[in-house]
Amino acid sequence: MAGAMTSKVSPLAPKTFPCIPEIQGVKLAVGSSGIKYGTRDDVLLVYLSSGTKVAGVFTKSLMPSAPVEWCKKSLKHGQRHARALIVNAGNANAFTGQRGRDSLRRIIETTADGISCRPSQVFAASTGVIGEQLDDEAIRNVIPVLKGSMSAGSFEAAARAIMTTDTYPKASHQRVKIDGVDVNIAGIAKGAAMIAPDMSTMLSFIFTDAMLPAEILQTCLSEVTDRSFNCITVDSDMSTSDTVLLFATGHTTCKAIIKKVDDPVLDDFRNALKKVSIDLAKQIVRDGEGASKFITVKVSGADNNGAARAIAFSIANSPLVKTAIAGEDANWGRIVMAVGKSGEKADRDNLRIQIGSVVVADRGGAVIDFDERLLSELMQKQEIDLTIDVGIANGKAEVWTCDLTQEYVRINADYRS
Amino acid sequence: MAGAMTSKVSPLAPKTFPCIPEIQGVKLAVGSSGIKYGTRDDVLLVYLSSGTKVAGVFTKSLMPSAPVEWCKKSLKHGQRHARALIVNAGNANAFTGQRGRDSLRRIIETTADGISCRPSQVFAASTGVIGEQLDDEAIRNVIPVLKGSMSAGSFEAAARAIMTTDTYPKASHQRVKIDGVDVNIAGIAKGAAMIAPDMSTMLSFIFTDAMLPAEILQTCLSEVTDRSFNCITVDSDMSTSDTVLLFATGHTTCKAIIKKVDDPVLDDFRNALKKVSIDLAKQIVRDGEGASKFITVKVSGADNNGAARAIAFSIANSPLVKTAIAGEDANWGRIVMAVGKSGEKADRDNLRIQIGSVVVADRGGAVIDFDERLLSELMQKQEIDLTIDVGIANGKAEVWTCDLTQEYVRINADYRS
Repeated sequence: MAGAMTSKVSPLAPKTFPCIPEIQGVKLAVGSSGIKYGTRDDVLLVYLSSGTKVAGVFTKSLMPSAPVEWCKKSLKHGQRHARALIVNAGNANAFTGQRGRDSLRRIIETTADGISCRPSQVFAASTGVIGEQLDDEAIRNVIPVLKGSMSAGSFEAAARAIMTTDTYPKASHQRVKIDGVDVNIAGIAKGAAMIAPDMSTMLSFIFTDAMLPAEILQTCLSEVTDRSFNCITVDSDMSTSDTVLLFATGHTTCKAIIKKVDDPVLDDFRNALKKVSIDLAKQIVRDGEGASKFITVKVSGADNNGAARAIAFSIANSPLVKTAIAGEDANWGRIVMAVGKSGEKADRDNLRIQIGSVVVADRGGAVIDFDERLLSELMQKQEIDLTIDVGIANGKAEVWTCDLTQEYVRINADYRS
Repeated sequence: MAGAMTSKVSPLAPKTFPCIPEIQGVKLAVGSSGIKYGTRDDVLLVYLSSGTKVAGVFTKSLMPSAPVEWCKKSLKHGQRHARALIVNAGNANAFTGQRGRDSLRRIIETTADGISCRPSQVFAASTGVIGEQLDDEAIRNVIPVLKGSMSAGSFEAAARAIMTTDTYPKASHQRVKIDGVDVNIAGIAKGAAMIAPDMSTMLSFIFTDAMLPAEILQTCLSEVTDRSFNCITVDSDMSTSDTVLLFATGHTTCKAIIKKVDDPVLDDFRNALKKVSIDLAKQIVRDGEGASKFITVKVSGADNNGAARAIAFSIANSPLVKTAIAGEDANWGRIVMAVGKSGEKADRDNLRIQIGSVVVADRGGAVIDFDERLLSELMQKQEIDLTIDVGIANGKAEVWTCDLTQEYVRINADYRS
């Protein structure tokens, strides 16, 4: 059984699960549907107090799963009010056609009935195998049980219930002030290949007790996702199910009425939301399938920020760069190659490449006298920083990835067989 | 030493080296510079008779090697006449700045002096490590020796001399008529990771004794490259040195004066050139680092041919699709994912996926009753055909790739260390 394979925790995992306080207005429960993982918890139900606002960002895949379609529609046409979130792991309900949509509909209705809300106020996510019909009855049978066991403080259990090939549960928390009043932001996430459609996918659910209008939440989330979850890659593959949802219960009240996202009173909140998102995004990379190194790619000097990001991803997704780092080989010629293939403007004769603190190439050529011994030591560390200046203008970007190991191939070649 | 690593021949290699006849006007010689491979031949010199026309297609990398820059300039400003080709393996002369350009210039001049031609009539290619200065003296020392050993019939030795991580020499031949007169087309190629900039890169040199104007040659080559060398991928990485050159010595004379590329008298020639190019391109994929399966991806029903190609490459470059095939796992959900992430139009609810002769998904859902046993047998073969219809319009494409194995990671992680 696939769930049994993910026994060894990633060497890049954080040492401990973070301390997450209760978020007022958020109650969670987890249970087991038995669909794929035996008795392991694989269903997460979250109840949100009346008045909770929601924002979402989803996969750009043209083959979206049924729950992604559902959430997008609810956000587009609804009041952006949320009363519940239901998540299952083990089956993605993707590429399942009308039957898949019907299954989801029944799960949504059962969830909505339990708290007498409208179906459009129930949000959903599924992660797991593509193309298999979801046994919605198994999930609907769990819902009444979960309803009886709701509690405010089980974020670790929640993070565990949504895991697939993840080797550890992922969560993050920040406390911050809006207009002098403390608010909490707590998030959980899952994902191990960014993005393996089979038993992975990136999901993140972030909860805050702040009181904020839905439009401002959406702007904050879109902005922050672009600087966090959209800055990571494990294998360049994009899931049919990627979902980030932000729920604001509004339990903490401040006097300020915030109408614009760039209101300075919101600065600390936006920063804290970014911190939570970046923390979760990096934890996903740290759980990259087979990963032995965490790699930060910083690009500067590009034509614009978009060009810098394209170059950074060209490096971060290059199998040859990633295998070199797996082999602790400072093979910077492959970085030159990856810059060249990005298609973005770069000045070959002004290119500068730095690994950790060591400049290995400058002004379009190898640096002759760099400290080989220091470089060799840096390559043996778990955290590798690649800093590239392409010598054109001021565009900048930073993305995070992991190395490509034989273990990645083993996991993904052996997975279903 | 790197040259010693490539001992085991790819399981996908052709059984024998093809029979290549002499091409009138073409003489070859190979020798050893001693730069990287000890006594192995690593320099190829080709003399071309007076009046030889040349066409070329090169990497789109923005970090081109010195020889790529040189050839492009000669084709742009020159008469498109060629008298010699000089190739070395082991050092790419890429990212070597002015010193690299000076090295190349000296090699070109030594070659030109040997046959009293203009430097712009000497074409060059280098493949190997990026960022190391090329020892041009070692190569120039070999040229007089090679000049004394020129012969018409050593295509196998030529194909071997340009190898880097290749596990076997690659060549192809076609004989065809133009206006009733026999002409020959013979080509050699190298490449093993399409495209590992370190010790690989794709190079191909094609020779014909046909008499054709340079503009028509260029149009034929561009058209054919697009349907052959540009339809393959091993690892999505693009070299700084990719080069395809087509030389036409004009030794066979036919009465027809061909002024337009679409002259029907040229149809057979263009087809034969395409056959040679596709054969060579497929041989490169068959030598993909660590490859155990040859994969053909056919996409139909796309918005246009360009969209079909983008979808086909999205599948062919997906690490998850390639690792699944390495594991002989018919994990078609990953193909759905790869179609979805391509960004091209596709109708999820009309998607059809066929593996070999077995339709596994149709009309946006799994096919329930396909022959599992037949599919399992098909997955164990060395040749895997994936046929995808995306249900939008009539765009079509076909690309070729190989699987992604633990051996690929081992080769590329261990390479320099």
